Amino acid sequence: MYPKTLNNLIESLKILPGVGQKTAERYALSILDNDMEEVAQFAKSLIDVKESIRTCTICHNLTDQEICNVCSDKSRDHTTICVVSSAKEAFSIERMNEYHGVYHVLNGLISTQKGILPEDLTLESLLNRINDQTREVILALNATVEGEMTTLYIAKKLDGKVKTTRLAFGLPIGGHLDYADDMTLQKAFEGRNDIES
Amino acid sequence: MYPKTLNNLIESLKILPGVGQKTAERYALSILDNDMEEVAQFAKSLIDVKESIRTCTICHNLTDQEICNVCSDKSRDHTTICVVSSAKEAFSIERMNEYHGVYHVLNGLISTQKGILPEDLTLESLLNRINDQTREVILALNATVEGEMTTLYIAKKLDGKVKTTRLAFGLPIGGHLDYADDMTLQKAFEGRNDIES
Repeated sequence: MYPKTLNNLIESLKILPGVGQKTAERYALSILDNDMEEVAQFAKSLIDVKESIRTCTICHNLTDQEICNVCSDKSRDHTTICVVSSAKEAFSIERMNEYHGVYHVLNGLISTQKGILPEDLTLESLLNRINDQTREVILALNATVEGEMTTLYIAKKLDGKVKTTRLAFGLPIGGHLDYADDMTLQKAFEGRNDIES
Repeated sequence: MYPKTLNNLIESLKILPGVGQKTAERYALSILDNDMEEVAQFAKSLIDVKESIRTCTICHNLTDQEICNVCSDKSRDHTTICVVSSAKEAFSIERMNEYHGVYHVLNGLISTQKGILPEDLTLESLLNRINDQTREVILALNATVEGEMTTLYIAKKLDGKVKTTRLAFGLPIGGHLDYADDMTLQKAFEGRNDIES
């Protein structure tokens, strides 16, 4: 019984991840309270993103140019490559504002369950990027079965070619010891450090 | 470090209620995976809604015509008017598919806190709608202080003019007795019914 145009918007909003009927209704009704200017900007952004965003020809990260901001930034350390599974993770690492190397986006993780093979990832392109200048490849993949499988696969491929590291395992900051699972606790023990005083 | 167009979309998505940076990022990245056709439809729906949706001149519900679907439907019972605070509630009642009367949308509730006075609502228009044909006005307002205040105010205004009812209070279906607050429990006792066997 919603007016047709409102119903169309509700249906469109449902393409967003995790948005069902109730949330879509709430979003759609809220749009009515926004200025036409804001809504027009929203509509334009949707089209602009689809038309402009592509993947960087070097690192496969998302960009609106041929080569992404990071790859084209001469002030960054191009001898260190951080390998991530998707653009999202690269953005998370950027937000931390501590990493000054470059990235390589795999576009997935090896998965027997989902049938994703090494050749479905941008591995070939990673191997081609590595040269005498490359000092370190940091594997920053999820601490999941798929992430682990991919980490080990790439580490093996790079063995003897370049120094390859992975992120540390351990307790998350703010994490309670009694909530940590056995694997995390075990890794935290294995990776224990001297206390500097 | 997001590409500019992606960043613009993230900012636009934040106008949706309850959507912060993280959710907006997730939504924006998901848009990249959708077909251009779907996204274009989404963009069009946003504009269409803003351009077409207005309020029904009779009941103040949202519509894309001069008079809404309910008010223009001759098969509905125009002698029963259900008063709700916003369009959203009318849509909820419609979804139940049990009510066949018409609506009146108040566009708010009387609130001393928010400074909403009776004259800020569409009460005048409600009083003008009521005539000899009107058999019942159902006040379907929130069970909150503001809803209660508005219910009592309207009931007093309509006193002697037309039969005025309100929705029943009681335990929600699936509700546990020990989780019900005192007021709800008290209302459920007061409104207890004979068991038909």
